[in-house]
Amino acid sequence: MAIYFDPLKIEYKKPFGAVLYGTTIDFGIKIEHEQVHSVTLNVIEDQRYAPKQVVEFQPNKSNHWIGQFTANNAGLYFYYYEITLQDRTIYYGAKESGMSGSGQWYNNLDEVHSYQLTTVSKIEKVPDWYKNAIFYHIFVDRFNNGNPDGKVTAPKPNTFLYGQMSDAPMYIRGVDNEIARWDFYGGNFKGITQKLEYLQNLGVTALYLSPVFESRSNHRYDTADYLQIDSMLGSLADFDALLAACHQRGMHVILDGVFNHVGSNSRYFNLYGTYEDLGGAESENSPYFSWFDFSEFPTEYNSWWGVKDLPVVNKNDDAYQKFIYKTPQTSVIDYWTKRGVDGWRLDVADELPDNFIKGIRTALDRAGKDGETVLIGEVWEDASNKIAYGERHYYLNGDMLHAVMNYPFRSLMLKLLNGEISIMDFVLHVKTLQEHYPSWTFKHNFNNIGTHDTERALTMVGKSMDKFNLLVQMFMTLPGVPCIYYGDETGLTGGKDPENRAFYPWDDVNPEAMNIYQDAIAMRKKYSWLVDASFDMFPLGRGVGYMYYHENGQYVIFAVNPTDMTQTFTSGQADTSSMALWPERLVEMYLNDVVVKPYSMVAIDNS
Amino acid sequence: MAIYFDPLKIEYKKPFGAVLYGTTIDFGIKIEHEQVHSVTLNVIEDQRYAPKQVVEFQPNKSNHWIGQFTANNAGLYFYYYEITLQDRTIYYGAKESGMSGSGQWYNNLDEVHSYQLTTVSKIEKVPDWYKNAIFYHIFVDRFNNGNPDGKVTAPKPNTFLYGQMSDAPMYIRGVDNEIARWDFYGGNFKGITQKLEYLQNLGVTALYLSPVFESRSNHRYDTADYLQIDSMLGSLADFDALLAACHQRGMHVILDGVFNHVGSNSRYFNLYGTYEDLGGAESENSPYFSWFDFSEFPTEYNSWWGVKDLPVVNKNDDAYQKFIYKTPQTSVIDYWTKRGVDGWRLDVADELPDNFIKGIRTALDRAGKDGETVLIGEVWEDASNKIAYGERHYYLNGDMLHAVMNYPFRSLMLKLLNGEISIMDFVLHVKTLQEHYPSWTFKHNFNNIGTHDTERALTMVGKSMDKFNLLVQMFMTLPGVPCIYYGDETGLTGGKDPENRAFYPWDDVNPEAMNIYQDAIAMRKKYSWLVDASFDMFPLGRGVGYMYYHENGQYVIFAVNPTDMTQTFTSGQADTSSMALWPERLVEMYLNDVVVKPYSMVAIDNS
Repeated sequence: MAIYFDPLKIEYKKPFGAVLYGTTIDFGIKIEHEQVHSVTLNVIEDQRYAPKQVVEFQPNKSNHWIGQFTANNAGLYFYYYEITLQDRTIYYGAKESGMSGSGQWYNNLDEVHSYQLTTVSKIEKVPDWYKNAIFYHIFVDRFNNGNPDGKVTAPKPNTFLYGQMSDAPMYIRGVDNEIARWDFYGGNFKGITQKLEYLQNLGVTALYLSPVFESRSNHRYDTADYLQIDSMLGSLADFDALLAACHQRGMHVILDGVFNHVGSNSRYFNLYGTYEDLGGAESENSPYFSWFDFSEFPTEYNSWWGVKDLPVVNKNDDAYQKFIYKTPQTSVIDYWTKRGVDGWRLDVADELPDNFIKGIRTALDRAGKDGETVLIGEVWEDASNKIAYGERHYYLNGDMLHAVMNYPFRSLMLKLLNGEISIMDFVLHVKTLQEHYPSWTFKHNFNNIGTHDTERALTMVGKSMDKFNLLVQMFMTLPGVPCIYYGDETGLTGGKDPENRAFYPWDDVNPEAMNIYQDAIAMRKKYSWLVDASFDMFPLGRGVGYMYYHENGQYVIFAVNPTDMTQTFTSGQADTSSMALWPERLVEMYLNDVVVKPYSMVAIDNS
Repeated sequence: MAIYFDPLKIEYKKPFGAVLYGTTIDFGIKIEHEQVHSVTLNVIEDQRYAPKQVVEFQPNKSNHWIGQFTANNAGLYFYYYEITLQDRTIYYGAKESGMSGSGQWYNNLDEVHSYQLTTVSKIEKVPDWYKNAIFYHIFVDRFNNGNPDGKVTAPKPNTFLYGQMSDAPMYIRGVDNEIARWDFYGGNFKGITQKLEYLQNLGVTALYLSPVFESRSNHRYDTADYLQIDSMLGSLADFDALLAACHQRGMHVILDGVFNHVGSNSRYFNLYGTYEDLGGAESENSPYFSWFDFSEFPTEYNSWWGVKDLPVVNKNDDAYQKFIYKTPQTSVIDYWTKRGVDGWRLDVADELPDNFIKGIRTALDRAGKDGETVLIGEVWEDASNKIAYGERHYYLNGDMLHAVMNYPFRSLMLKLLNGEISIMDFVLHVKTLQEHYPSWTFKHNFNNIGTHDTERALTMVGKSMDKFNLLVQMFMTLPGVPCIYYGDETGLTGGKDPENRAFYPWDDVNPEAMNIYQDAIAMRKKYSWLVDASFDMFPLGRGVGYMYYHENGQYVIFAVNPTDMTQTFTSGQADTSSMALWPERLVEMYLNDVVVKPYSMVAIDNS
């Protein structure tokens, strides 16, 4: 017996990938067996044990069965086949790895891995500036100090400043391993403004700033006041000047929105009585009391991952929602967006209720220029089916997030370069994400090869400049909007936080790393049309091929050699069996005897 | 049976206290017993079990025995009486407390506590400027930053600077509790120079600077280069300018000489290869190799109190001695003394061999203006008999130290004010020191009520401004040269290191503490003649009296009330029985019905 089904191929499932709810999907399956009595597609909305919908399939041509399914809701569906033979019933679903592609049959229902079908409520349009952007992620304290005298602006009480900008970052801890004092280098808005020329020359078109509101820490994820610029970064005028300077250059700026929790030392919680306002930790009569969840007032409260410095806010609290997004003109989102901010990256988006994200999006659309703002979520895994705190999230299904941070791509690229994943698995992982995500999310996800929360990219490839070169080239040519973590382009290295947060070494630029970035960005710009093109990927011998094809006829095939030996790739090595979108002949026609050096890639195009 | 002997009274021992070796001392003892066969004074040089010298006493008037002893060497002698009665032998020595004053008799020789006789090789003359000085002890990093822009001068790599000058000091430690990075506020020479006007107005006449040579730490007790000013403090020119500015004002400056150990990160040891010189830790061919004691090269070496960052130097090494003091003109002592330094405070003097201290003194006398320099030792206990590392030290017996840091006075004053010592014990402790020390040392010891190594004075009196007032008044009027720890005069508080090393709060001066210092210094200046006067102390009811009497006829009696209730003192309360130097009638004549408020003192004088 042999069964053929692969949702990545349009001969088995059409259309490919996520669809607008209400769309009718054609399914087909081929079963090579003498006595098939019936075939049904069993579809379960969202949860495996919810009541299932059963689609009776009809036999078609020899060994083929076909059927149609229409999802009535936006959300997630999971499906598998039930096949009745003469003497028994078997099931067909995805492989045990959970990846899409051809699956396998199971004897027992309990063992079946379902396939995922994503359905959306609307086709989102991401802003043109966003999908064409090359972002630059600035951890603001660590980028540049723009004061003429080099002094740090308004250091806070009980903090430490690094003696030299080249000092390695470290945490200053107390006896209980708590942060005893916060450490600062003193990067500020003026410093960023002064470097816009540099960034624009590099090819950067948009900035993603780490949090900038008043806080106690250097990372500022512990917001103290959502309506104040942190004084160490400069004044509100300095912030406005940065926005204006960016916009004047045609550059855009998104902020880091941290709405899941606040700082214990905040106007809202006010654990230390720093603020005049009566804080939630101070009194049950505080206007902020309802924001927080106390199991025992005032000492025991819900805090982020148990970090007492970060009390979690109850996102369903009406007062909080009013403050953050519900009140037109004056809500946090309105206020900053009207000031000129072009979008937000939502911190821990998978810990925010969907309705909260939807509220933020509504405020953003209201306050921002029509369709010109963007909302991006921080999610570390496949965001299409992430369950966090027992809850499924639908933030990608329309009217919420435009895209998410693409940590899975980072992980896959690094594994590929470090020989930790097979070519087939790499390709299938990418294509599974392509299938699960709404198309605009997959095409315009917020890609990175390192952030303030990960090891530096160059460190992750063992400081190999060759691997780093290929990594950056893939980063710039895989689907998504690349977001460069500040300093990666000058060869900064380092493990996890705090090593990954060194100050930008303006006096010690690494020309090799800089060249790598300049070349890769030039390639991105050369193929700028790829953001609107169709994409597919295929195993290519001991390498990987991926391809963009634009409806205007342009195409480019990237032949990637992630090994330490030169490869000569031919179309015969290309496993195009799971390519969904084009006739295989495109690859066959254009990919012939391409010599690719170790840890390199070659682009074949018709331009 | 009653026996009367008290070396504090000249009727029993004359002259009082320490004497020049070769001086004949008259002893007397009164024994009320029917059948005394013989009385001998048994004198042991330095060590109890060394061969003793026996002085046969002669009977004098009724019950009185007298004898004479001449010490042939400069050093220490210990003595007790052996009294043969008809049926047995008894012994008389000091009380078990070890304090001087009247003693007790013992049945067993093993139990006897001997009295101490100090003999010196010469009568030292301390410089006039020194004995009249009011010192100010500056922990240089913590006093004042003189840069116009307020920036810290030349911060070192891998250091931290305090965010605000008002931040509380703290150590930045790593996982093994080691200092991970050094913390700096950025006080420097220019900052001191700018504050000389303030200091001189306060009444300060001399500065004692914490170490100023190139080092890694903020305290700079880990010398990296004895011939370089630490760059964070400014240039050599800045140092010269500070010296010149002081001298122009008639002020003097002593440095902190740290010669027992160096920094592991030094030109000499060079554990981290920071310096071009081949360091002692780098090679047995290093010119500095002989300075250090390796039990296993290069990892195991003798270090100060086991602190690996502070390798101990072998003070008997000829190369080291040449470098520090033996080579005229160029030795460390010559170099800085010729540059204008008025003296040195020797760090851990009781860990330096006597001959090493004598060598330093020789260099100091050679390089400095004739008789105008001073050498002071750091010793925490009664320095006259301190045994450190199994060795007795004779640094007070002539041609070595002029004085030592008077930590015992600090301790006694604090105990008195906090009710932790009886009036009699307080007086006896003071007088024991007076007896043990050479007279010039006792009169001109380097007094403090707090240093960089102790809790702040105000903290030690429970932040009571009343107690603090009396403490400072006693500090300014007890024998010795007062050395004010920077910031005490503006009410700085804090426990031990690092709390006691806060930055001087220039913008937050405490007027009450400042008034206390101004008044006490004014009193010191009013009685400036006391530095050349005779001194004695006596219990005064529930208070303490002490008195200076100058040969020109001037006197002053200080009546001290260390209790929380007003006292009216009369001469009848004065226990003058152990006053050595004057007829009791001086007190009887002048001390009558003196009303002294709680924690206060009153001066009675004939000026």
